Amino acid sequence: MFVVGSGAKHLEDELKALGAGLIEAEIRKFPDGEKYVRVLGSADEVTVVQSTFRPQDERLVELILLADALRERGVETLKAVVPYFAYSRQDRVTKEGEPVSVRAIMRALAVYYDELYVFDLHNPETLKFFPSKAVNVSPARAIADYFREKLGDGIVLAPDKGARERAKAVAEKLGLEFSHFEKERISPTEVRMTPVDVDVRGKNVLIVDDIISTGGTMVKAANLLREMGAGKVFVAATHGVFAEGAIERVGRAVDELAVTNTIPTPVSRISIVPDILGL
Amino acid sequence: MFVVGSGAKHLEDELKALGAGLIEAEIRKFPDGEKYVRVLGSADEVTVVQSTFRPQDERLVELILLADALRERGVETLKAVVPYFAYSRQDRVTKEGEPVSVRAIMRALAVYYDELYVFDLHNPETLKFFPSKAVNVSPARAIADYFREKLGDGIVLAPDKGARERAKAVAEKLGLEFSHFEKERISPTEVRMTPVDVDVRGKNVLIVDDIISTGGTMVKAANLLREMGAGKVFVAATHGVFAEGAIERVGRAVDELAVTNTIPTPVSRISIVPDILGL
Repeated sequence: MFVVGSGAKHLEDELKALGAGLIEAEIRKFPDGEKYVRVLGSADEVTVVQSTFRPQDERLVELILLADALRERGVETLKAVVPYFAYSRQDRVTKEGEPVSVRAIMRALAVYYDELYVFDLHNPETLKFFPSKAVNVSPARAIADYFREKLGDGIVLAPDKGARERAKAVAEKLGLEFSHFEKERISPTEVRMTPVDVDVRGKNVLIVDDIISTGGTMVKAANLLREMGAGKVFVAATHGVFAEGAIERVGRAVDELAVTNTIPTPVSRISIVPDILGL
Repeated sequence: MFVVGSGAKHLEDELKALGAGLIEAEIRKFPDGEKYVRVLGSADEVTVVQSTFRPQDERLVELILLADALRERGVETLKAVVPYFAYSRQDRVTKEGEPVSVRAIMRALAVYYDELYVFDLHNPETLKFFPSKAVNVSPARAIADYFREKLGDGIVLAPDKGARERAKAVAEKLGLEFSHFEKERISPTEVRMTPVDVDVRGKNVLIVDDIISTGGTMVKAANLLREMGAGKVFVAATHGVFAEGAIERVGRAVDELAVTNTIPTPVSRISIVPDILGL
């Protein structure tokens, strides 16, 4: 059975439509700002679905409160599906005195949850901070299904070497060629991008990344591909953590921008709900 | 050494003035809303001071992130002083399916903290949910010191029987008489209040409670005391969780309203900082 948190309300209808059993939850705030939650059912095994986009901290606390309520009702196995995992980019100490924030959050969730499922975590190695079963789910199935027809016999590209495995996974689902952009700093403010070992002329191209925030890299890559004679240029990402104006900026530069619905945005057209049900 | 969180910034100057050793902390938000913290020093033993008033959840996450940063820097003993403890009023399951929210928060803090100090917790029994040393600090010293001269040979009253121990503790510090109001429901919407076994005529009175939110009870009690011929009427509380307009409403009904600085408000004139340093 599933419980849907405030950060997964946008997935609820599709979960139901695909046959998920749902336990209703009441979630609201007291006048002083404290969250109030209540679960209106129980089961031996319950999966709480809660994406932790803004306001992140409220959604994290909600995850903990829902878990306490479910344990109180006797739930034995408690799983958390956190499609977008807040603090995942704070994954290392860059300056002395910083926390490894993603570790702190995972440890707090581990107080109640037996299993943790996240989608396309920024640094999958950080799953080790969750002391029991923790799984990083790939968005490749969802992204490939969405772009299969539009892309035809195109090419899948990663915006940088670090994103190559994700592009590869999508390309393999589609039976297509893949590569990545090499980034080279040519001045303190300028980076040259070059697609490696691949001929994009006349080909549709899909650029795939984990997170789009400002979208600067995507716009640059798209413009470059146009100059090189590519056909249609599509951009996909797992998490649409868009900064102000980013959707418009990237949208203008490409034929289509689409992200998954780990975070609800105007371009979250790629659904990961089937993957949640397959866990 | 102390680290001051965003919810204790208003205590920082006094902590310094009273000689506390402070480790500076950088606390801000990323553009996407995630908190960033960094501690600019370390020690074997560190006390993080963080009151968790609104926005409660952000301050709770900050407590956890600061703790992770401090452990990363090698701190051995980590103490949390949480003057106002969010979710403390959600201390029991009233309707099936609710969490014991205060338990959930205490268990999350226990991942990192060895000791927990709170002020005048709504239900002190809930400290048992913190698995190691947890202490409920009384506000009696602070409240008594503040009102000693104003009150003279007055009387200390609790607004209801449940608040009697707090009134007693304040009265004992002052060497004064104390009592409480009996509440009796005389209709579905009306409650009669009567001060028990005490003659307030010509006496200054201090009413003491743990939390003031709407202030309705305090206004009612104050008006009643005036009718009964009391001298000056003062109202004190530990935590000023004031609803909109409550400060003005109570302020108009009494000679002085003052609360401690566990939460910063325009009437937080009673300082608990000496008590923090005495822990």
